[in-house]
Amino acid sequence: MRLAIPIEKLIDQLVLLPGIGPKTAQRLALHILKYPEGNALALAQAIIDLRSQVFPCKRCGFLTDVQPCAICRDDNRNHRIVCLLEESSNVIAMEKSGYKGEYHILNQHFQLMGGNLHELSIEQLRLRLDETGAAELIVAISPDIDGDILARYIAEALKDKTNLRITRLAHGLPVGGDIEYTDEITLKKALEGRKEI
Amino acid sequence: MRLAIPIEKLIDQLVLLPGIGPKTAQRLALHILKYPEGNALALAQAIIDLRSQVFPCKRCGFLTDVQPCAICRDDNRNHRIVCLLEESSNVIAMEKSGYKGEYHILNQHFQLMGGNLHELSIEQLRLRLDETGAAELIVAISPDIDGDILARYIAEALKDKTNLRITRLAHGLPVGGDIEYTDEITLKKALEGRKEI
Repeated sequence: MRLAIPIEKLIDQLVLLPGIGPKTAQRLALHILKYPEGNALALAQAIIDLRSQVFPCKRCGFLTDVQPCAICRDDNRNHRIVCLLEESSNVIAMEKSGYKGEYHILNQHFQLMGGNLHELSIEQLRLRLDETGAAELIVAISPDIDGDILARYIAEALKDKTNLRITRLAHGLPVGGDIEYTDEITLKKALEGRKEI
Repeated sequence: MRLAIPIEKLIDQLVLLPGIGPKTAQRLALHILKYPEGNALALAQAIIDLRSQVFPCKRCGFLTDVQPCAICRDDNRNHRIVCLLEESSNVIAMEKSGYKGEYHILNQHFQLMGGNLHELSIEQLRLRLDETGAAELIVAISPDIDGDILARYIAEALKDKTNLRITRLAHGLPVGGDIEYTDEITLKKALEGRKEI
């Protein structure tokens, strides 16, 4: 049993997306068929526009449709703190936390096993830090093994910058979390980082 | 915090799809940004092609890119049995079951509460049955309240066709199912429909 070729072709494209399996892809394709014509074309056009209009900010790497990006053009930010992130999507979470410094976004996930650490341009990061005369670099890489190694690698590569404070986000219990369900490594880190009340 | 406008626009389009929430839409949009350019355009083109090339078969209603559809052109099928379905996607499940008759697809979900029962064209169904000289109409509508009412409505409307057998799919335990977890109505139907071993 085969569906019409254009349906199969769309399903083939949709299963390439993260979290979309063959059944979901089929459901989405058949849903798009039932759409009003305008909606389906608007979806296709939005994908085309995305790829033709959005690029990393030349200064900080944040995905943007204007150069430099809105964050780089914002004069109310603390230009002396730079937060290093792997992905542009992480900016959204950081902004919600109330962070008001700048960003430097790698737009790549560095993996020890993938062996792509050599692709990391330390020189570009160094130029960026010099440009703003940054006093602090917050390495806000996800707290897994690859992230830990990447953070140490960066700290090592920049250790000649004696005036630069290099920090990482604190480990500990998530707010609203339950000690009972916290894994032992997180709990160990939370103990190490305990604070006076 | 706002993302680049083309990203926001794609997210707005993606959340219109079934089962896609704002977080998933954001993840998909950022994933499409990281795609090779060709893949993103192939996805957009697949959506455009789908809408310009796929239409319901003029004879049976199955979504197809050729008229009449592959099923209607298949001479090895039993033209005297017609299976009435709500959606083209149901054909896939029916075909897997080994069914070898024909189909008549409504391409619409009829709801008692939505009050769209009057949109159902009984005349079109009647013409279709006359054309093939059908001996049996299997009303394979999903076994919920709306489906039950629709099935009875169709049976009532066609009761003058005395040579036509109108049937529904049997209710009962799903194969591999567990009696313990079967709801009481299904179990009642399974009891009523019990068979000699």
